[in-house]
Amino acid sequence: MGARRRKFWGWGYEGEGPTRDQQASMAKTLADMFEVDSLAVAEPPTLDELDLPASRLEPPAALASLCTTDQFERAGHTYGKSFRDVVRAFERDFSHPPDVVAMPRTEDDVTALLDWCADAHAAAVPYGGGSSVVGGVECDAAEHGYAGTVTIDLRELGRVVEIDRTSRAARIEAGVFGPALEEQLRPHGLTLRHFPQSFECSTLGGWLATRSGGHYATLYTHIDDFVESLRVVTPHGLVESRRLPGSGAGPSPDRMFLGSEGILGVITEAWMRLQDRPRFRASASARFDTFADGAVAARALAQSGLFPTNCRLLDATEAMVTGSDDGSAHLLLVAFESADHPLDPWLARALELVGDHGGDVNTDSVRVSGDGAGAREGSAGAWRNAFIRAPYTRDALVAMGCVNETFETATTWDRFDALHEDVVHSTRDALTAVGAGNGVVTCRFTHVYPDGPAPYFTVIAPGREGAQLEQWAAVKSAASDALVRHGATITHHHAVGRDHRPWYDQQRPEPFADALRAAKAALDPAAVLNPGVLIDP
Amino acid sequence: MGARRRKFWGWGYEGEGPTRDQQASMAKTLADMFEVDSLAVAEPPTLDELDLPASRLEPPAALASLCTTDQFERAGHTYGKSFRDVVRAFERDFSHPPDVVAMPRTEDDVTALLDWCADAHAAAVPYGGGSSVVGGVECDAAEHGYAGTVTIDLRELGRVVEIDRTSRAARIEAGVFGPALEEQLRPHGLTLRHFPQSFECSTLGGWLATRSGGHYATLYTHIDDFVESLRVVTPHGLVESRRLPGSGAGPSPDRMFLGSEGILGVITEAWMRLQDRPRFRASASARFDTFADGAVAARALAQSGLFPTNCRLLDATEAMVTGSDDGSAHLLLVAFESADHPLDPWLARALELVGDHGGDVNTDSVRVSGDGAGAREGSAGAWRNAFIRAPYTRDALVAMGCVNETFETATTWDRFDALHEDVVHSTRDALTAVGAGNGVVTCRFTHVYPDGPAPYFTVIAPGREGAQLEQWAAVKSAASDALVRHGATITHHHAVGRDHRPWYDQQRPEPFADALRAAKAALDPAAVLNPGVLIDP
Repeated sequence: MGARRRKFWGWGYEGEGPTRDQQASMAKTLADMFEVDSLAVAEPPTLDELDLPASRLEPPAALASLCTTDQFERAGHTYGKSFRDVVRAFERDFSHPPDVVAMPRTEDDVTALLDWCADAHAAAVPYGGGSSVVGGVECDAAEHGYAGTVTIDLRELGRVVEIDRTSRAARIEAGVFGPALEEQLRPHGLTLRHFPQSFECSTLGGWLATRSGGHYATLYTHIDDFVESLRVVTPHGLVESRRLPGSGAGPSPDRMFLGSEGILGVITEAWMRLQDRPRFRASASARFDTFADGAVAARALAQSGLFPTNCRLLDATEAMVTGSDDGSAHLLLVAFESADHPLDPWLARALELVGDHGGDVNTDSVRVSGDGAGAREGSAGAWRNAFIRAPYTRDALVAMGCVNETFETATTWDRFDALHEDVVHSTRDALTAVGAGNGVVTCRFTHVYPDGPAPYFTVIAPGREGAQLEQWAAVKSAASDALVRHGATITHHHAVGRDHRPWYDQQRPEPFADALRAAKAALDPAAVLNPGVLIDP
Repeated sequence: MGARRRKFWGWGYEGEGPTRDQQASMAKTLADMFEVDSLAVAEPPTLDELDLPASRLEPPAALASLCTTDQFERAGHTYGKSFRDVVRAFERDFSHPPDVVAMPRTEDDVTALLDWCADAHAAAVPYGGGSSVVGGVECDAAEHGYAGTVTIDLRELGRVVEIDRTSRAARIEAGVFGPALEEQLRPHGLTLRHFPQSFECSTLGGWLATRSGGHYATLYTHIDDFVESLRVVTPHGLVESRRLPGSGAGPSPDRMFLGSEGILGVITEAWMRLQDRPRFRASASARFDTFADGAVAARALAQSGLFPTNCRLLDATEAMVTGSDDGSAHLLLVAFESADHPLDPWLARALELVGDHGGDVNTDSVRVSGDGAGAREGSAGAWRNAFIRAPYTRDALVAMGCVNETFETATTWDRFDALHEDVVHSTRDALTAVGAGNGVVTCRFTHVYPDGPAPYFTVIAPGREGAQLEQWAAVKSAASDALVRHGATITHHHAVGRDHRPWYDQQRPEPFADALRAAKAALDPAAVLNPGVLIDP
């Protein structure tokens, strides 16, 4: 662990991700796909190439030991990990780094840092793993009239403090990263089983603040569902809700902070509901002639009450690109897991439903096991590997000058077909309009609900040198317009941040926005917390 | 339907509930139990006995047709349906009836009524079925400096407006009562399956505003879980959230209004997630030597991932009183239902777990059916009948001068045994202290979660003439103190209203209270909505 250092300009750890050879091979594949001669692979920035503006803030002596103005830290905390962020990094554009990066060790430290920010009129940006893909952690302080930016990085608050085995819950500090969390739970036979794609480089606090979407395709889709209670440091005092399995006492305090993206307070700790580690698994895949047919089968599963752990529909291109299938059919991956009981009856009924709805179940794909082995082979295994590699791959796409975006939503089943068609067409049209017509747009379901799916779209297209951001913005805008036009949400689990504001503002009922502004004014009277996220400063 | 008229002084409909003969028989049973000679059955109030204060408000001409000052309506809207409410009715105490009862027919009517209340500085009390047991719908306007009270009864907004069969959802007006709702859904093969005890005399809007608890013992415990979107008329404008199966776009707007108990706005409509009508059922019961043993088995079921529809643990007294068992053992009722698949494997594994945890499964009780028949026989059937009769029975207890209270909570499993012991002891001690030591205190689980149960307590004790309310208050206070002392919630699904305020105020994090006050000030600047509920006016 000690030797690994996070990349300051992109996803993950230095020295990890695709090698130069692998990148060269990717570039060749993409060039063929895009029908261009070749794609050059640009060099990522190095720290000594950067010319960061001087820090405008000096922490008070009492806080100095928590704070740094180190170049690596300031550069590394300048952006999240969106396409736009990595492109700007490749452009060596680090014009608005935080002035100070603070690493509190206690809740009192957090309070003291917020007090200082209020005194100094500095923006305070809560920071977990920095994996935001929506501009959630960057801040141009001067633009909003602040004296500077203090990024509050919670990495020092990384412990599982207490475990309640009986209730299967644990009190966990918010700064813990995914792998370190699971490592601390494993000896107790417990797991949170929250595996967003960002798992390796994101934290519990970040998941909570952004309503992260996780491992389970049904039932427990968002981190919200695992929250028993929260501790949140606000400028107006500490909020600590009670550990409750359920409650009907007024509007939920936790639900006000879940999704608040750092504008109301800094989440420092949570009691989280855990799972026993699964012992039984069962999975299979089925092929469909059309994506719409696959969606009907996924709907039947979502409405069956069987609650599959995985119910992932990949369109033909996505299945091919990820190596899950040959691209001649759309693929539905279905899986169940349990710590309690063998899953044969669950899978049997699921496959019956899939067959009834036109799916061609691949009998070779059926895996039923009592010890977890086997379930990750075949299509499911191929897909999973591609899923984990994706953020590294994305950095490589940037280096190759491509345009790349992933965006996701949720909508009701009755609206899905029209939404899907419009989003794909609008996005393709936008690609054509920016001269990237050879790009691909793929779709999969990440989560499914009885009343609708959460579709996830991926765009990969050739970029024009110096115009990557402009091209990307046109595509992002066309896609987001289509989502909002169809009444879908601008985000199912990527959050709002600064980038989704124009569409979030259309989606959110205006009187609710006023209530949220009022709540913020009560909790953050000096308006220091994450200005520009969710509401205007 | 036309001939049935709601009782103005207690639960349900005139002429329904226990007959005089049945009440006499009940009185005899109770007298034996309490070891007293006899219990006199008092006569309920009649309308002509009441001397309501004159109405202090006159609606503007444009609203006159929506408004009434009829005695029956004013008396009937004076209280909810708590023990305290019915005792006051028997005491002919209707000192603070609403000045006007308004029955809007459209959302515009609601807006106009709220505007009038703001102009007239009248308190506006949103009213569904009036089944509150926590003082949620009564208001002493003068006490808070208001010119009077307008109760806004939504009964005219009772339609299922639109059905989306594909997504299994419906757009429903908030004033619809339980039976009328199910009647409108039945032709479509759909059901909300939300069956609080108040089902017959409560409305969708009331369920939403109070986070009602329903039919399902696991998974979908609160009405919250079925909400796709809301329409809420606030004095600051209409809030309409999007129909979304899931979202991660900022804090949930719906979750701010769920549980807001009429202080932020009037819920007029909701898109609700529905269920297919169940075709398969499976159920059984098991007996336990101790309640704690039964709780361990219930915990195993709650943590199994089997998601039983019913997982109701009755203590021995509750099992006896409801005719479910003979009182020599504690009883666990387990049931599954599905519209999709036979449930044999589910029940088999559940009963294996119950047996492994010390339960004596009654093999005669096992029912597995494909058409819904049979599952309601035996212990489960007896319990269900008693459950539905309970509110009528409660009115009879008041007539017999008894002290009666039901209260409920939720807590984590690790804290349950100590909580249970303390609550029962504290409540019994309080009964003794008020001279009602022969009373009984029973407990059951209404809902169970992986991390804890929702226990429900019932108190029945002999009262002293003229002292019923004082005795009740002492018991209620001792019980509530015990709940809050153990970190449990003051309510899992009965809501806060005015009666639970002292304990809710302790439970709620104070900075959150400030945020809620600020949100209310933004949405209800004239502070007309339901003063005294959740926060001070």
